[in-house]
Amino acid sequence: MHLKPANLYPDFNIVRLSHIELGVRDLTVSKEFYVDTLGLVLTEETSDTLYLRGLEERNHHSFVLQKSSEVSVKRLAFKVFSEADLDRAYELFKAKGLAANWVEKYAQGRTLHVDDPFGMKLEFYYQMEQVPCLLQKYGQYRGMQPMRIDHFNVFAPDVEAFYTFYSQELGFRPTEYTYDPDNNDAIWAVWSHRKGNVHDMAFTNGLGPRLHHVAIWVPTALNIIHLCDLMSTTGYLKNMERGPGRHGISNAFFLYVRDPDGHRIEIYTSDYLSVDPDLEPIAWKLKNPQRQTLWGAPAPKSWFEEGSLFEATTVKAPVLEMQPIVAP
Amino acid sequence: MHLKPANLYPDFNIVRLSHIELGVRDLTVSKEFYVDTLGLVLTEETSDTLYLRGLEERNHHSFVLQKSSEVSVKRLAFKVFSEADLDRAYELFKAKGLAANWVEKYAQGRTLHVDDPFGMKLEFYYQMEQVPCLLQKYGQYRGMQPMRIDHFNVFAPDVEAFYTFYSQELGFRPTEYTYDPDNNDAIWAVWSHRKGNVHDMAFTNGLGPRLHHVAIWVPTALNIIHLCDLMSTTGYLKNMERGPGRHGISNAFFLYVRDPDGHRIEIYTSDYLSVDPDLEPIAWKLKNPQRQTLWGAPAPKSWFEEGSLFEATTVKAPVLEMQPIVAP
Amino acid sequence: MHLKPANLYPDFNIVRLSHIELGVRDLTVSKEFYVDTLGLVLTEETSDTLYLRGLEERNHHSFVLQKSSEVSVKRLAFKVFSEADLDRAYELFKAKGLAANWVEKYAQGRTLHVDDPFGMKLEFYYQMEQVPCLLQKYGQYRGMQPMRIDHFNVFAPDVEAFYTFYSQELGFRPTEYTYDPDNNDAIWAVWSHRKGNVHDMAFTNGLGPRLHHVAIWVPTALNIIHLCDLMSTTGYLKNMERGPGRHGISNAFFLYVRDPDGHRIEIYTSDYLSVDPDLEPIAWKLKNPQRQTLWGAPAPKSWFEEGSLFEATTVKAPVLEMQPIVAP
Amino acid sequence: MHLKPANLYPDFNIVRLSHIELGVRDLTVSKEFYVDTLGLVLTEETSDTLYLRGLEERNHHSFVLQKSSEVSVKRLAFKVFSEADLDRAYELFKAKGLAANWVEKYAQGRTLHVDDPFGMKLEFYYQMEQVPCLLQKYGQYRGMQPMRIDHFNVFAPDVEAFYTFYSQELGFRPTEYTYDPDNNDAIWAVWSHRKGNVHDMAFTNGLGPRLHHVAIWVPTALNIIHLCDLMSTTGYLKNMERGPGRHGISNAFFLYVRDPDGHRIEIYTSDYLSVDPDLEPIAWKLKNPQRQTLWGAPAPKSWFEEGSLFEATTVKAPVLEMQPIVAP
Repeated sequence: MHLKPANLYPDFNIVRLSHIELGVRDLTVSKEFYVDTLGLVLTEETSDTLYLRGLEERNHHSFVLQKSSEVSVKRLAFKVFSEADLDRAYELFKAKGLAANWVEKYAQGRTLHVDDPFGMKLEFYYQMEQVPCLLQKYGQYRGMQPMRIDHFNVFAPDVEAFYTFYSQELGFRPTEYTYDPDNNDAIWAVWSHRKGNVHDMAFTNGLGPRLHHVAIWVPTALNIIHLCDLMSTTGYLKNMERGPGRHGISNAFFLYVRDPDGHRIEIYTSDYLSVDPDLEPIAWKLKNPQRQTLWGAPAPKSWFEEGSLFEATTVKAPVLEMQPIVAP
Repeated sequence: MHLKPANLYPDFNIVRLSHIELGVRDLTVSKEFYVDTLGLVLTEETSDTLYLRGLEERNHHSFVLQKSSEVSVKRLAFKVFSEADLDRAYELFKAKGLAANWVEKYAQGRTLHVDDPFGMKLEFYYQMEQVPCLLQKYGQYRGMQPMRIDHFNVFAPDVEAFYTFYSQELGFRPTEYTYDPDNNDAIWAVWSHRKGNVHDMAFTNGLGPRLHHVAIWVPTALNIIHLCDLMSTTGYLKNMERGPGRHGISNAFFLYVRDPDGHRIEIYTSDYLSVDPDLEPIAWKLKNPQRQTLWGAPAPKSWFEEGSLFEATTVKAPVLEMQPIVAP
Repeated sequence: MHLKPANLYPDFNIVRLSHIELGVRDLTVSKEFYVDTLGLVLTEETSDTLYLRGLEERNHHSFVLQKSSEVSVKRLAFKVFSEADLDRAYELFKAKGLAANWVEKYAQGRTLHVDDPFGMKLEFYYQMEQVPCLLQKYGQYRGMQPMRIDHFNVFAPDVEAFYTFYSQELGFRPTEYTYDPDNNDAIWAVWSHRKGNVHDMAFTNGLGPRLHHVAIWVPTALNIIHLCDLMSTTGYLKNMERGPGRHGISNAFFLYVRDPDGHRIEIYTSDYLSVDPDLEPIAWKLKNPQRQTLWGAPAPKSWFEEGSLFEATTVKAPVLEMQPIVAP
Repeated sequence: MHLKPANLYPDFNIVRLSHIELGVRDLTVSKEFYVDTLGLVLTEETSDTLYLRGLEERNHHSFVLQKSSEVSVKRLAFKVFSEADLDRAYELFKAKGLAANWVEKYAQGRTLHVDDPFGMKLEFYYQMEQVPCLLQKYGQYRGMQPMRIDHFNVFAPDVEAFYTFYSQELGFRPTEYTYDPDNNDAIWAVWSHRKGNVHDMAFTNGLGPRLHHVAIWVPTALNIIHLCDLMSTTGYLKNMERGPGRHGISNAFFLYVRDPDGHRIEIYTSDYLSVDPDLEPIAWKLKNPQRQTLWGAPAPKSWFEEGSLFEATTVKAPVLEMQPIVAP
């Protein structure tokens, strides 16, 4: 394997990705998309913010949409195992000379805001206000019947550096990766997890840091097919960017859609359990087209190039030259 | 085979079953069940009638619910191939000394009302007012995403007599049947069709004529599983009578529910094409438990005994002694 | 509507499409594809022919693969309602000065071979040898669990002429069509049926006559997704041409694959019942991209251009200039 | 809540349940059931043992079937996070005066055998021989397409005592439980996990310790419906004990089958993520019938009473009087 194994005993214990804060321009338009079409549950609505969650989620929110003049990603948020883990996280970031500040956040209380070494805005907290689980409130199922947030995927200008920080300092464990045997086995992308499936966090070579996508988990491929039918006949045809299809990497059945502000959402199902600490990550060669789509259909150019900027963050060009996009 | 083959050239051409008129006590309660829960589309609503249809249906209605002091079946309705077929139907019923009357019906015009020889109220018409097909209006999909009415199943006190009339005079073609090899191959039930799947009309031994059920077709078993989840968590647990399961006969994946007035509805999917005129009907022995449920689970007693009365129709005891209901 | 309605009382009664005879180069290779991968059932195998059927089919064959030096379509076959219908078919073709010959065919007996006015080789018969229905032999389900043949789609150099012959003489009834409002409402494609779903026979503008595809019906979209997974990981990645996706026309969930000789097979599910004689065909404008794919993904160039030649038949250029293929 | 929260920092780290060793009478018969019907993969076969795994599993085995004169459960096995965790497990069991012995096991090496305080035979190990993941070898999918072992469920004569040991000493975290508000909130059953879904280990009031069932995870409800069709038509009708249905507890779509020796297997899908350390367990009242089956169908008597004995282990009567089984 070409990756250094993860640090299995990091300084603090991240349980899983928890939520994302997105800057959007028009909350009414966003609500039609996220609530009425995707089917996320509106936990709470204020004059400038929508708090959304999936049907099985008991945390107050997994998507926070803030009215904003700029379209941006404001924060990627993670839940830690205890209050003490929060303190240890603070120590780690401070010791590395990285920004780390305590804030009070609505519905989640004591929260740690940090910058990672690459300029991404992260947030850690331990406990969030609990709301009813709607898993068995079948009368409230809508749209694609979204269950929970699944993962973040970011464009990283230096995937090896990103992976090194997240795996050695934060304990993210690799499950799959792409490398280039024609270029000293350079690492092009890594999928890494905390919660026990393929990923909480993936890094893909590209101009960054930018958010490539945030993913929502649904139970079966038929939920995704229904969303295709729904979006294509309710005015969202242009928002369907790629798929449905099967990724070679992760084995996920996927669909990529763009929200009204262009933020990319992956609808995701059918990956696998990855809790074994000795799980050997799966290596994919860069030139194997089935890593991206097992069935062979190529991704559109936009999928390789477009992403959401983090608020107030400078992007860098990737250290590996971007692969050419070859149409079928 | 123990059945006389159907008359392939009947006097008039019935295309398919078309709709049912049910007497119900409370339209508000019925609407909550049929529209909000099952997901049928409300084409039109008057002070005393709901007109409903499935998502793919372009006819104005396939379920007509009439506010009524008595719970009953008012009519079983069939579409014929042409106006001339209507006239030929009139001649046939008159020639047999059966009631046959022309009426004008809302949204379907010239309509023939007849009594069959056993007292069932039938209705024939050629053309109905067309309304939009919602098959690709995915934004209007609700509940179990019902597509169309599929068939009627009636308790017949003399299944052979019923089958003889419907197959020889009306051209219904048999696809499957149950017989008793221990009792001179007596016929216990017959499934027969006009439209090209397992049935438009089934006859089951029992006190009758009574409606055993009317069926609605859905695309896949997952629509039925979703309906189970939905009904069991929105106050309709007691309305779930049998299933889900797989019938041996017809191979249908099924669920039987009772509407708020006790009318039985089968939710039905995955039978087969039966258009071949020389299709040999499948024979099932009465004692084969898999004919009812391929997977072995028995039906509840109510399923064998309860049915909806036709308005102003006298019922008779069955000529074959009812089979004992054996609990698991 | 821009189409002349079908003749509802044609001289003879075609029940449905029945089977196809394809010339293939290597039966071993074909068997691996059709039987081991798609999951069709091998009814019988001779030194030069494979007879295949779907799981619910009781006819001896729906696909006949003949070892042949040339890759071609040998016959499109249809079942008629009675022996007398065969005789009436003979009269009709003779009266039009078209080739019509009686032959004896294995497992189906008395058979009528005709040429249609455009050079397509057709075959009519009434009864075929019956073999066991495997619908409830779940232990024999393989691959995508194919149920039955569904339809033929042919490139027609003059769609209006083809439609006129098939609808007025043979009684095929239209369900959907494509027309060009910018070119005198010229008809580009028609879908027409006998058996009661969207089509037995479709005509598409193009160099022809050639077979665009023959379709196999499967129960749900998940059968198609499994076939994608199966083909893409067992050496058939290059045989996957288009999809999966949803057609606007027919509402079918589809996948197009190419057999080892290049014959195109559509895997097809979720269209609708069309038995009503007064069903108004659905009109699609040529420039509406959703008619081809509801979800927007374009078809590859090969899909518009490639097809199978009929044996010993001359093709003509289309009367309507081919539409430009626009890449995404 | 009526349960003491789990010890979140146990002496050693159990990652997940790993495998089960079952004594069976006839390996040929067992292979037909587990491999040919359920679709588990045969990793290796010796003269007296079958080693089986699910399609996504990379460990050499999750089911070990040993030819045995007695039908019994030999071991419930768990994977720990490191070799050091094994040593800490040894210390814990020794300190409590419980049997703890090191053994070498085929394909997993250094292994700790212990007895829990109630006589159940457990096994801990860190690393097992890795074999190919077949998740994307779709050509090898068979039967119900089983993915992985999911959980154990045991009859416990004293559920509170079992839960206390497993949660306080071994760190199993509760997700759901049943209690009796009419009997001092006595605890009747607890579901508890290590790997992040509803359970690795459940305890149910009853004569024990006995294994109630071991569960296998499949992707969707349709896999379970296919297994029902398959078993009911290939000679395994009598082995289908309960379901399919939806559990209120866990929200699982389930089927219970009995293997040829009577060991109960649950086929299981659609529960939820439970990694949050502060996840509040869901409380179900004993008299709520929907906890067992959301849709209302009762379980058969055998399901409440029968279970597999652990080898050489004495069983005790439950401390709570068994609930009456009420037929529908």
